[in-house]
Order: sequence, then C-alpha cells, then structure tokens
Amino acid sequence: MALSLLVVGSVALDSVRTPHGKVEDVLGGSAVYFSVAASFFAPVRLVGVVGEDFPGALRQVLEGRRIDTAGLEVVKGGQTFRWRGSYEGAMNEARTDEVQLNVFGDFRPALPKAFRDSQLVFLANGSPATQMAVLAQVEKPDLVVADTMNLWIETARDALVELLGKVDGLVLNDAEARMLTGEANLIRAGERILAMGPKFVVVKKGEHGALVLAHDGPRESIAEGRLVCPLPGFPCPVVRDPTGAGDSFAGGIMGYLAREGRQDFAHLRRATAYGTVVASFTVEDFSLRRLERLRVEEIEGRMKQYSDMLRVE
Amino acid sequence: MALSLLVVGSVALDSVRTPHGKVEDVLGGSAVYFSVAASFFAPVRLVGVVGEDFPGALRQVLEGRRIDTAGLEVVKGGQTFRWRGSYEGAMNEARTDEVQLNVFGDFRPALPKAFRDSQLVFLANGSPATQMAVLAQVEKPDLVVADTMNLWIETARDALVELLGKVDGLVLNDAEARMLTGEANLIRAGERILAMGPKFVVVKKGEHGALVLAHDGPRESIAEGRLVCPLPGFPCPVVRDPTGAGDSFAGGIMGYLAREGRQDFAHLRRATAYGTVVASFTVEDFSLRRLERLRVEEIEGRMKQYSDMLRVE
Repeated sequence: MALSLLVVGSVALDSVRTPHGKVEDVLGGSAVYFSVAASFFAPVRLVGVVGEDFPGALRQVLEGRRIDTAGLEVVKGGQTFRWRGSYEGAMNEARTDEVQLNVFGDFRPALPKAFRDSQLVFLANGSPATQMAVLAQVEKPDLVVADTMNLWIETARDALVELLGKVDGLVLNDAEARMLTGEANLIRAGERILAMGPKFVVVKKGEHGALVLAHDGPRESIAEGRLVCPLPGFPCPVVRDPTGAGDSFAGGIMGYLAREGRQDFAHLRRATAYGTVVASFTVEDFSLRRLERLRVEEIEGRMKQYSDMLRVE
Repeated sequence: MALSLLVVGSVALDSVRTPHGKVEDVLGGSAVYFSVAASFFAPVRLVGVVGEDFPGALRQVLEGRRIDTAGLEVVKGGQTFRWRGSYEGAMNEARTDEVQLNVFGDFRPALPKAFRDSQLVFLANGSPATQMAVLAQVEKPDLVVADTMNLWIETARDALVELLGKVDGLVLNDAEARMLTGEANLIRAGERILAMGPKFVVVKKGEHGALVLAHDGPRESIAEGRLVCPLPGFPCPVVRDPTGAGDSFAGGIMGYLAREGRQDFAHLRRATAYGTVVASFTVEDFSLRRLERLRVEEIEGRMKQYSDMLRVE
C-alpha cells in the first residue's frame, strides 16, 4: 500500500502567453500540478486555498482523481490567487507579468486532522515561515521535501536556512542553487546545500533535466557516501507551455516514492526519472490539459523509452 | 583492428585565464584535443600546421602516443596559431581576448598520401571551404563528421549547407544549432539539421551534456526511423579550464567508433557517453594536462560510474 502523501501549496488561476498561444484564467498553482502528477502513482492529500470565484469545473479536475481536497479551503467573498506570465524563444524562463495574491496572500494553512499523520510531505514553494508552520502540524513524517524560490533566498534567508535543518530534501532550480550557496559549480552548490541539512537535493535545470545529490540519504536507507546522479530532460519536440513543469516533476518524484514506499538512492533516482517523464507531458499543452488526458500506460511507455535512451553500458 | 581515423584542424598555443588560474602559450587547438582524446581508443592521423616556434616539448605530447604526425606541417619562419581566452562564473562560455591566426590563416591542408585511405574522418572547426577541400582528398571514407561554429553559420552559410550534404555527422553546440536552423526547440533544430543531409547530429550543451539525433543513421547501419538520445554531462565538481572540452568530446566519440568498427545508433550513443567522460577529465586541469596523465582504466572506471548513474529502469 502506498504511503500517505501530503502537499501544501498554491491553487491558482493562470493566464499564460507563449509563442504557441495563450490562455486566460485556467487551472494552475503548485499544489495543483503537484497533486495531479502525483495522483498517477498514489493518492494525494491537498492543502490550499481558493476564493468563492474558483470554478466548480476546475475543482472537478482534482476531484475526478485520487486527490483528497478536504484541505482545500474556500474563503467566502474571496478571490482566487491569479498569476499572469509569458514565455519567449526557447521558453526557459517565465516572465511574471502580473500577480494577484488575493486569498493566497493571507493563507495560513491548517491541516485537517486526518492529514496530520501524513508520511510523505511536500512543501511547495511558499515562505519558509509558512512551510515551517505546516511542518509543525505533521505528527511524524517519514520524508519531508521542500521547494523554494529566489524571492525567499533574497528576503528570508535565515528562515530558509532554519527550514533546511528540518527537511529531508530540497527541490530548487539551478539559478536558485547558485544564489543560495554563492557557488557557480552546480555539484559544489549541491554539496553546500547538503551541508545545510537536507539529505538530498534535486536541482532542476529546465529542458536540461536535473541533478540529484545525496549524502547519507533520506533517513538511514541510503548507503554511506555522497551520491550523485545527473538526468537529462526527456527530449520534447513540442513544448507549448512550460508552466507547472517543475511542480509536476516534483509530483512525479514524490508520487513514485509514495507508491514504492522506499527512499533509498536507487528509488530516488528512478523517482526523478518518473518526475522528468511526467513533466515532459505537462509542457506539451497549456495548463493541466495534457495531464488531464494522460494515462498511466503513457507514463510507463515513455519511462521505458527514457531508460532505453540512457542505456550506455 | 580499429578503423583508420583522420582529423584535420588547428594546433595552437593557448593562453587561458579562468577563476582557477592562468596559463601562457600552452598546448591547444582542436586537432590536438581531438587526437589526444581519440588516441585512448584508436590510432589517429593528424593533419595540421605549426610555425617554427612550436616547442619540441609540446610535439612530444603528441608523439608519445598513438598519433601519426606525418601530416603536421611546419612552416619555416612561421609563427604558430595563438589563442587567448578567458572564462568567468559558471565558465559556460569562452571569451576570446585575442587571436593571432599566423600560419593557420594560410592553412591549405594537404593530406599525406598514406592518409588518403582514412576510413573515419573528423573535420574539426574550420571554414566549410577548407573542410570541403580536405574531404576531396579522402578516397572513400566510411564516416565523415564535421564540427562548425557561429562564424561560418553567419559568414559562409551556403558553403556550410553544401558541406552538410556531404558529411555523415555534424557536431555543434546548442546556440549554433539554433542559429543554423532558426528553431528555438533543440529537438526540432536537430531534426532540421538532419533534413539538410547529415545522418546524425550531436548537439553539445556544455555542462548539460549532449543530444544525439539520427534518422537512418551513419550509412545503412542504423535501423529505420529517427533516433534521439539525450545524455547529461558527467558531474564535475572541479572544472579548472573548459578549453578543449568540445574537441576532446568529439575525439572520444570518433575514437570509440574507430575502435569498435561499427556505427549503429547504440554504438553512437555509447560513443557519445565515452566522449562525455573524456571531456569530463579534460576540464579538470588546464590545457592537455589532465589528458596527458589520464589512463585508459580511469576512462573505463568513470564510464562505469556514468552508466550506473543513468540506470533508471
């Protein structure tokens, strides 16, 4: 049986423009991308907040799958978090054109009692203080992984460093890893992050894939010694909208770990490969569209392709 | 027995500055990095040019290994090609501070008669006209691979396109692939290059590794259908000088193909992995220093590590 998996993060209405088209007020948010991605592997408990304006049809996207929305707070009279962004050229970086925090600005996550025994916890991008407040509500997690962003590295470094002492894993992108550590070399940046507390770090590199580093691993299950694994991005000839790639990548990782119930380095590496594969589907269409129509067999098929591509021995 | 392998390119005296130190008038040049890297796998025939000032001690570096320097022309009274460059930060791009073409500016490669039956040919970066002139001197090659650069894409596009109709493979970096095709997506850029003639293309992405694309492959030996393989860079915590990484990467690829005598996609993928591994040693020290003291067993050891890292099935 899968381990219980909790995610706390944003639920948003996104408006996105890319060279391939544009969409308005579509389903988005870190907790949403994470949950839908993870739900292909294991049931997910979602904690987030929306306003009364959040369309029932979008809620259906979550409730039609193995996602427990008991923790999705609806603020009466409130407006849902809105993000407007755009991508150009190789689409490696989102430009934020407008943010309306709305109800997400006052979000003080309260875990439903039934979620407090969660075994795997993903703290999606948010202020380290909020992430810490969530962590305090989980009784005895097996594995806690956090995401973060440049904003918190710049404005809340002390709180972030404190958080790093309390989590098992950190997911962040390459620019953030360099910013957090002041180290240009990514491997050494990763090593410095490990020295700050986490037992593993996953550095996201967009289309270039990811780098996984661990020392003695999530809890005691990883063998002695630092471990490193670079994984390329899955080659995507069609990238319509990169939004949510990072969160669905994390969802694939955590979902796989929840399903397998093990967190040694070989499983973490395979989990990262699954995350890579799920993210490669996410970017094929706007919003959650591709994930909504994705089937588990497609994930397994692409995973097989991916592992065949990497067979170099 | 290994197939015969020819490289035509530059032999240079480099002066390089990186955050880790600087060197003056050290051994460099595309044909040098290529040859030394390839010589770990198979004998190499080198064609290049130097001036009378080229130090005998540097020539020894080549002649102490399986590199036939019968094609290394020495121009009386001439000065060797000199390049001065520097790297900063993550060292992903070289800044050229000074170039003295010297004898390389008038280089009209003439193949020794004994080199004309070469089976594998690597046309290191040079003007497409010069690359074409070399190709005309090879009798009946099994496999011809060319490198190129932004300069030729901008100033000699027609000649380059003509060359692409005559080679089996092209090696170039990601920015060049985008520039050559006008396509931001690297997979589609690679596909467009394949449509220009080559049977395979290797897109170099610096620290992020490489992307290999093929359609019906080098000659008839690759199975039907387009083939794609992304390979990550080998994780290098110590990068002192990236100079020559691309050329030693190509040397590893071609050397391995020469040794194995086969060029199907599985071999091309493994060759690219070997190229990645050799390049990861190159950058550990300035100039050819690391390759000079490198042993075949170290290559095999790191190749084993690399293939283990990529085992995700």
